[in-house]
Formats: sequence, C-alpha cells, structure tokens
Amino acid sequence: MSEPNATLVEEAAKLDAADELRAKRADFVLDDTVYLDGNSLGALPAAVPARLADVVAREWGQLRIRSWEESGWWTAPERIGDRVGRIVGAAAGQVVVTDSTSVNVFKALVGGVRIVQARDVSRDVSRDEILVDESTFPTDGYIAESAARLTGCTLRPVPAPEMAAAVGPRTAVALVNHVDYRTGRLHDLPGTTAAVHAAGALVVWDLCHSAGALPVGLDAHGVDLAVGCTYKYLNGGPGSPAYLYVAREHQPRFDSPLPGWNSHADPFGMAPGYTPADGAVRGRVGTPDILSMLALEAALDVWDGVSTAAVRAKSLALTDFFLRCVDTYVPAGRVESVTPAAHERRGSQIALRCADAGEVMAELIRRGVVGDFRRPDVLRFGFTPLYTGFADTERAARVLAAVLAGEAGEADEAGAPGEVA
Amino acid sequence: MSEPNATLVEEAAKLDAADELRAKRADFVLDDTVYLDGNSLGALPAAVPARLADVVAREWGQLRIRSWEESGWWTAPERIGDRVGRIVGAAAGQVVVTDSTSVNVFKALVGGVRIVQARDVSRDVSRDEILVDESTFPTDGYIAESAARLTGCTLRPVPAPEMAAAVGPRTAVALVNHVDYRTGRLHDLPGTTAAVHAAGALVVWDLCHSAGALPVGLDAHGVDLAVGCTYKYLNGGPGSPAYLYVAREHQPRFDSPLPGWNSHADPFGMAPGYTPADGAVRGRVGTPDILSMLALEAALDVWDGVSTAAVRAKSLALTDFFLRCVDTYVPAGRVESVTPAAHERRGSQIALRCADAGEVMAELIRRGVVGDFRRPDVLRFGFTPLYTGFADTERAARVLAAVLAGEAGEADEAGAPGEVA
Repeated sequence: MSEPNATLVEEAAKLDAADELRAKRADFVLDDTVYLDGNSLGALPAAVPARLADVVAREWGQLRIRSWEESGWWTAPERIGDRVGRIVGAAAGQVVVTDSTSVNVFKALVGGVRIVQARDVSRDVSRDEILVDESTFPTDGYIAESAARLTGCTLRPVPAPEMAAAVGPRTAVALVNHVDYRTGRLHDLPGTTAAVHAAGALVVWDLCHSAGALPVGLDAHGVDLAVGCTYKYLNGGPGSPAYLYVAREHQPRFDSPLPGWNSHADPFGMAPGYTPADGAVRGRVGTPDILSMLALEAALDVWDGVSTAAVRAKSLALTDFFLRCVDTYVPAGRVESVTPAAHERRGSQIALRCADAGEVMAELIRRGVVGDFRRPDVLRFGFTPLYTGFADTERAARVLAAVLAGEAGEADEAGAPGEVA
Repeated sequence: MSEPNATLVEEAAKLDAADELRAKRADFVLDDTVYLDGNSLGALPAAVPARLADVVAREWGQLRIRSWEESGWWTAPERIGDRVGRIVGAAAGQVVVTDSTSVNVFKALVGGVRIVQARDVSRDVSRDEILVDESTFPTDGYIAESAARLTGCTLRPVPAPEMAAAVGPRTAVALVNHVDYRTGRLHDLPGTTAAVHAAGALVVWDLCHSAGALPVGLDAHGVDLAVGCTYKYLNGGPGSPAYLYVAREHQPRFDSPLPGWNSHADPFGMAPGYTPADGAVRGRVGTPDILSMLALEAALDVWDGVSTAAVRAKSLALTDFFLRCVDTYVPAGRVESVTPAAHERRGSQIALRCADAGEVMAELIRRGVVGDFRRPDVLRFGFTPLYTGFADTERAARVLAAVLAGEAGEADEAGAPGEVA
C-alpha cells in the first residue's frame, strides 16, 4: 500500500483527539473496516441487539397481543416520529414513522396536490403541475409520475438548483431532494422553499441523504411536507421504516391517498366510513412494522445529547480532509470529485468520478474500505460523523490510491459489488 | 371456577393425544395462558429469536451493506413470498412479501381496474365500478374508496355472500374478504371468483383471516389478485410485512400505482424512466423491511411438512369442540355464536355475541384466557391449529362460564382491553 503521508497521519490523529463526537463511536458495533457506506446502510448501534431481543422474547413472546397497549406498540409511529422530528427540526406532532420512503412520497405528493387544489377551488387558476428534481433518486421520479397520473397533473423534471426559477402559476407541488444521492450536492432548502411558496405552491423535501448528517430545519424554513428513510445516517437498520412530515398548518387539510385504518380518528370503532385522525397520525396507513420500528427507536438513542450543528461541523471537516488526502495520495487526473467544493452545497458524502469505478470499488471493499459504486462511473463515500474518524478517512484515501496505482494489497474481506442504495 | 365436565375433559385429552399436529406446539413459545388471539397476533415461533439475533449481529452488524447480496436480503420479498404462496396455493413467482395489507389492497385494486380497463379499451362497455364486501375489515373499505376516487370509479358495498349476484357489466373489480374478521364467516372463494369472472370482472381476495388457517387454493380457483397479512395465522410477528399475489396471467399487465424502484426491471440502473420488472417483483415498492421480513421467514419454518388440509381439519375440530364446551358450560342465552355453524361457512374463529363483552374479555384475560373484543358486543376467539389444543379449548369455555356466572377467579395476569386487530 502507498506510504502514509506523515503530515496527514499526524493531522488525522490531532483531529480525532479534538473530536467532540469521538465518544459516540463506542455506541456502534464497528471493526477494522473503514465503513464509508453509512449513506446507504448505517452501522449497527450497540444498543439494538439487546433491545430487539427483549421486544421479541418478552413483548411479543410473553405479552403477545397485550403489547399493543402495554408496550406502547400502537403509538410507536408517532413517538418515534417525534424523535426523528428533533433531528430534522420538526416540533412534536408532525412526523410519523411509517411505510417506505416511496410510499410516503406518494402520500406527500397526492396530499400536497389536494391541499393546493382545495385551497384554490374558487380561483380561476388551476394548478395541475408537479415539478420533480430531475436528478432525483429514481423512485421519487417514478412515484411522482404515478401521483401525477392519478391526480390529472403533468410532471415536469427540473434541475434542483433551478427549481426556484421554474416554479410557476401552474405548479401545485415541487418535489426536491435535499442532497443528491449521486453527487452529494446539497440543495438550497430555505431558498427553494421560499421561492416555491412565493409562487403559491407547496414543496416536498426528500431528506434521505441529509437527515442525521446536517441540520434540516423543517419548521424554521416553513417546509410543507417531507419524507425520508431512517436506515442511512439514522442507522435504523436495513429497510427500517421511513417517515412523513406534514407541517402542522397543513394537517387539517391533508387528505391521504392511502387512508388505512391506522389513520382513522377511532381505529377500533371499526366504522365503515373513514374519518381521519388529527395530527401526524393521519399519515399512517396499516399496522406498523413493530420489530423494525423498535430497532429504529433503540438506534435513535445514540442521538441523545448530540447537536446536528456538531454533526455538520464534523461532516464538513471529514469531507474536507478526505478531499485533501485524495489530492495528496491519488495522482492528478485519476479521479475527479463531482461533489461541490463549497460547504454550502455539499452534503456528507464525496463522489469521485473514476474509470473502472465498479472494479475499483470491489477492490476497495476487498481491502477493507467500504463505499459504494454508482453506475456508470462513480465511487461514493459517505461520512457518518457519529462513527467515522479522521484516521479512517486518511486510510480510505491511501487505500484508494494503492488500488488505483495497481499496487498489490492484502484482502481484508471477500468483496461485494457495493451496489445497493 | 366452574367444575370441569368429566366427559369434555376426557374427550379433550383423547383429541389431543390423537392430534397429528400436536408436536408443532413445541415450535412456539407458549405458557399457561390459553392464547386464542392468534387471529390478531400469532404466538412467537421458537426459531425466531436466534435467527433475528443473527440477522442483527452478523448480517447487519458485521456484513453491513454486503448483506443485501451475500445474505439474500435483496431477494427476500420474492423468496419469502414463494413460501407464503405454498400456504395459500400459489405456485412460485406470484407472491411478494411487501408493505402492509392496506397498501397492497391499494395496489391490487388500482392495478386490477387498470387491467380491466386496458383489456376493454376498444369495447363499448366501460367498467367503472368497484364492489367491496360491505362488512369488510374497515381498512379495505377506506382504501377501496380511495382507489375508486383516484381511478374515477364508483364504490358499491355489497354483502360478501351476495357478491356473486351483484357483479355486473359495470364492475371492474370486486374486493372480498375470505373470512369475515368479526363473525368468522368463511365466504365462498371458488363460487364468487367464478361468478365475478363470468361477469367479466376481476376479484381481489383479502386472505388476512384465512391464510394459515385453511386451504385457500389461489391458483386452483383462478383468483386474480390477493392480499393478506402475515402476523395472524402465519405468526410473522407484530406488524410483519404483508403480501400481494398477482396471478401469472395478469403480471404482464399489472400496472402498479406505487411503482417504486424495487419494482424496476433494473433497479441499480437508476434510470430516470420506469420500466417494470417481470413477475411478482412488480408488486414491490421501496426498500424491504429486512428485520421484520427475516423474522417472518424464520416463523414460516414451522410450516415445513404441514398440510393446510390437516390444519383445516383440526381447526374445525377445535371450533366444533369449543362450541360444544360453551353449550355445556355457559347457561343458555347468555352468549350467542355469530359464527356460522356449517363447516363450509366457518373460518378458524368463534365470535360470541355477549352483553358487556368488553368487561367480560378483560376479565377473561385476567384469568389467562386471551381472546379479543370487537365493539359493540363480540367476544372473538381465534383457534390456531399449530399451537392450540383441545384441553386449552375446554379450559377457555370453562373460564368463560365462570366469568359470566360472576364466580370469583384467580387473576392470571394483568388485564388488557384486548382490542387490537
């Protein structure tokens, strides 16, 4: 492997020693791997196994049906939603943990269009357009197309940075990713939200790649609706349930296209007619997935006492340092960062364009540096400030350089294609 | 407590001794409680805790992102779907485990309407009506109303037994429960399916209260679409993911209203345009909930070597015996069964109409007999043939009689309202 650069190694040690989040690393199950794929699947929080074992053996195994009340299963989606809300800047009562991100995008878009159309029912203007971030994670685009088709709207893809300029008098709702999954570009949530509002439309933010990595400030910026997953920077576990934020002001008019019995005002009344519950509960659908839900709840314990400002500061320091290490170790021209250099436009990942990126990532994984590969030519490295250190970061860049130089390396683990979002 | 009836006690012992499914009881975590609420939440299969601990500690904790391929996470919805398929009479490749029942009802109804409307596009007839079982579990009705609204159809509630007569030239899809959640009435799946087909419409069956309790025969009876949960007679755990069956003949035209990236033909191509996958995968939406999904997979191990015919035979024997025990122990007129006496119209539960049913059930639970209460006046007792025995059944009726007689009883456990579906 390439020789360590003494300056970088020393600097990494200093930065790690001064890191106020360093103690959080002990809250996760880690090993010698440099795990830079927490933007795909967060590492296992140490509290989860024992908690989940108790949920299974005692709450399900012994209390069985009684746990819906006695163990707080029934209210878990709102309770855990409030905990997610604290991380994304939402006051209590506006976030519910439920379903997948895709399903929540559908609810948010159809619900958003209905709020706007009901509001404008007596006006001449007819808003029948949904704007979508054109480089969106694909599922948002597919679901937006379905939402448009079912609500009689047209769908117009627009580059996220141009969303503020593109929104117009026909726009009902704009769906934007806070951070681009591929490039790691951070979009302007406050500015875009204000511009969408100025045009009389609503905005839906997809927070999959920002929640837990940086302050979001949903309430502070007046966001209307938002969705996100919990298995990336929130470390909720593979496929852990997603969440839906409906701002309090919109809740009374939120008319879900998936009005399952869990969102009924009196679910055990078993009435044939639907009467929606008040509040965030209105975003629920069917029976919540308790095992995954309570694993997530345990995973969120690591956030106790953590400020998203501190997380953001460390995230930027990590990605800055990674870029410097890459510059130092990797011959010029061999990779090119497609992640913006400016802090205000950077999320918590670095995406490097690289020839043979698929093979390079497979070899990196074999050597114990886990990122992922995005077709056709991107190496993606996610930095989770709660458990990623600066020494890890230096090592990742150094191993990358060795792989790119074709140096022989010692396999750390069997390789994996690293191609899962 | 009321004195045991020697004849019934003796008969219970004989029936238990002769029970070919008796050994299956050891595959579950049980205690002294008579658990007759497996039609709401199945008991914990003994294999689940160790399997789930391994999923968490090794697959998530150690392999992390690699498990999507190496541990078979990515293909779990189809793999486990095939196992559910074997229990409901569906050949491989038609069932996918995904989302909640409510969300799958939405996909099935909108998808069903689209299949019919696309088929009839060149004909004069316009099918724009959805029929729904009028005593349906409420969520199906709420979701059906939403599906009708979004597809421009009208929704017409019809008693399930009259569905075959009600279906007409305007009907696109009929949604029917196989077993009524409240009364335990078993509806005529073969006859209704044939009648719906004869009228040129499609049928969606909700199998929540039949799957795992009796043979369903989806393929044999030519069912078009079906949904169901996995946490009742399939014992998958609280809120475990539901499933969607799309008959092979309909798959090429199944046009999901929730076309998430997991249902794309090439999900990692990350193409902006949606191209649906072939087969059952087309019913997927977002990232699958792996912890709950794999707990379900372990739970399904108890079905190895079990025939649904044997399950059905024992189920009927249990419910027959329960009714006889109730007749013997409970004074005439104090309760009334609303579950059909005829085997061909009975599911795997007995629902007893009873004054003060809520209080009676709370007291039953305190005395270690767990059923549930359905407003306004129904005591619901579910019989899971894999772990419920005849001695349990005799005891349940005897304790019920004691409670109804106002006899003092020894509390077994802290009571719970028993009002969760």
